[in-house]
This record gives sequence, structure tokens and C-alpha cells, in this order.
Amino acid sequence: MSESTPSVYDVIGMRRDVRAEFTGQVVSHDVLGRLLGAAHSAPSVGNTQPWDFVVVRDRATLATFAAHVAEARRRFADSLPPERKSTFDPIKIEGVEESGTGVVVTYDPTRGGAHILGRHTIDETGLLSVGLAIENLWLAATAEGVGVGWVSFYDEQYLTELLEIPAPVRPIAWLCVGEVERFQETPDLERFGWRERRPLADAVHLEKF
Amino acid sequence: MSESTPSVYDVIGMRRDVRAEFTGQVVSHDVLGRLLGAAHSAPSVGNTQPWDFVVVRDRATLATFAAHVAEARRRFADSLPPERKSTFDPIKIEGVEESGTGVVVTYDPTRGGAHILGRHTIDETGLLSVGLAIENLWLAATAEGVGVGWVSFYDEQYLTELLEIPAPVRPIAWLCVGEVERFQETPDLERFGWRERRPLADAVHLEKF
Repeated sequence: MSESTPSVYDVIGMRRDVRAEFTGQVVSHDVLGRLLGAAHSAPSVGNTQPWDFVVVRDRATLATFAAHVAEARRRFADSLPPERKSTFDPIKIEGVEESGTGVVVTYDPTRGGAHILGRHTIDETGLLSVGLAIENLWLAATAEGVGVGWVSFYDEQYLTELLEIPAPVRPIAWLCVGEVERFQETPDLERFGWRERRPLADAVHLEKF
Repeated sequence: MSESTPSVYDVIGMRRDVRAEFTGQVVSHDVLGRLLGAAHSAPSVGNTQPWDFVVVRDRATLATFAAHVAEARRRFADSLPPERKSTFDPIKIEGVEESGTGVVVTYDPTRGGAHILGRHTIDETGLLSVGLAIENLWLAATAEGVGVGWVSFYDEQYLTELLEIPAPVRPIAWLCVGEVERFQETPDLERFGWRERRPLADAVHLEKF
């Protein structure tokens, strides 16, 4: 591999869900544009491209959302049995303010009209298309040395109102996007003993499940 | 960029949803192993890794599934208004038999138990994790020069029974994976006039939707 162009496999291996490593430096307009371009190049069912991207950098909005996430974190911690709670306690679950940029990825289930090629049988392929766009953005960011952290500790209705997202469009993910010093080598949830990686061989089945 | 290691951006741009370009040559065991490894390295909510992969190469199974897909295609064509039907008619929607390999990606919503970090608020993050794994596989395949085509013209219950997938595990996608001569430069659904790409600028919003 060349230093300047890590391969897709390199990037897939380097990619981390970043929480604690944001430096506070906001990503440049050019880099952010490339990341959004990568997301927008994802495949989608019937080529519907059902995603939109809300870029949030207003400090007040970031602080408001971070406070909402902190409350959702407390509720989750309180729901855990004592042993899991003590494992969870040191795990950071967001970098909303530290990253300096939120990219909120949304899903419009009505885009593409009534006859969506490939969604008439499996409706979830619309939502899944949004997932494909998110992974494109995440891998492009990793190749740029930019950190991404997916935050899902929030109430959908709250975020919908905060960003004035009109029905039937729905927020699907809040991605913290920001400069990092480095990526951790081991995912946080493994490092902190929350959950280990399953062996690949256990996940592969031949001919029948 | 070096010829041997295309960048992530190169691969994101080259990636196509392949239907007609499969050569009939089945991908090697080594390549398939790398693709599945890439998928299995995807991020997942709470590190649950809720996916499994069923590799289907049995010719009889491929033929049976292809016939089922053909029937779903007919039903979709019959549902279209005349103008859309004539646009749809020449579009190939699967390469199940020609690719020689189906990788069926499944989702187990119970993996990770009762307390899934990050899914207590947004349940769909489990399903979306499967989408991230699919995009990893797709991009790795593209880097290898291997074609992938996502087939969603099927009934979920039919595929569940065909591959003996036990509840509550669900099939999420049938991916045709096979050798190709080349990738098309323009997505099929644009080439055939089904749907154009939306300008990126229309998809990006600042601060509020």
C-alpha cells in the first residue's frame, strides 16, 4: 500500500466509532464536501437517493443536543443491572460538542413516488439505503483521517423538532464529524469490556443457515 | 493514485449495482473470504454484529430463487402505468444464476441481549448496522474488481424458508457476487432513464432542514 492512498481494506480496518479523540478542530469546508459527496454516491433502492444531510455547527444547537443525549445516557445507565452499569459508566457515547460538526442524515420514504423499483417487495430497502450512504461517509472520513461517531442516544421526535425536519422526512443518525489526533486500534466497546468481536467463522453459513 | 491500491473515493465512484456484467466465473474462496471479512468489520450498534452470511452456490437453489425473482419482477411490471412499464422492460434486475454466488445477509434482532447500548432509543440502528456491513462488502468487492448486485425482488418469507433461516433471524438482502469484465460507468437506472441522480447541493442543508 502507498502512504497516500490507503486501500479500502486498510480503511475498513482503521475505521473507528470515535467519541473521545476529537481535537476540537472543525473539519474544513473542502473535506466536508468530499465526505458528503461520498455519502451521496451510495447505492439506493430504485436509485431513489432518499437521504438528506443537515450540517449543524451552531454552538447553541450542539450544546442543546448534547444535553438531550446526556439525559438519554442517564436513562440507559439507570436501566442496567449493576454489573453492566459499572462496565458502561466509563464509556463515552458522544462527541457532539467536541467534534464541532453534526451531520444529521435523514430519510424521506416518499422520495421516488409510488413505484419504487425494488422497494415494492422489501420496504426496508429505503431505510437501508441511508445506511449505505452513512458507511460511505464514514469510510471516506477515515481515509481523510477524520473521525466519525454515530450517536443514537436521542428521541427521534426531539431531534426532528430541533432541526425542523418536515414530515414525512425522519432523522436516522447524528454523526459527529471532526478532526482527530489518531484512531484507536481497538473499538471502545471491546476496550472497555462491553462486547467482544464474534469470530467470522461463526457468522458464515454454507447453502443453508 | 497507484494502480494497485485505488483510494476509497475511487472505489466509491466505481461501485455499481451489477446485473448484466457477470461473466459466469465464480469468485475464488480467498476473495470471498476477504469480502466477508470486510463486511464483518463493519460498525454495529452496541458492537452487536447482528449479521450472518449465507453463501449459496448450489445450482438448484440459485435456479429456484431466480424463478421466484422473475415472478416478483412480473408482478412489479404489471403494477406500472404504461409509460413506466416500457421504461422498466429492458432493465435487468438480477444476476442470481450468472453470478454463481449468492451472499444472503441476515439480521438477528436478539443478538446482544436485553441491554443494547445505543438501540434502546433508536431500534432501527440494528437493521442499519446490517446495511453498513453490506456496503463494506460492496466496496471491498469493487476494489477486487468483483461485481455485486443487490436483489430485493423477493418475498421475505419465501427466502426465509428456502435457506432454513430460523426465527427471529431475518434475511435482509440477497447479494449476487461474481466476476465481471468491467463495471458500467453510469448506473443502470440512469442509463435506462428510470431515475437520474439528484444534485448534491439539493441534499445538503445548513443548521436546519
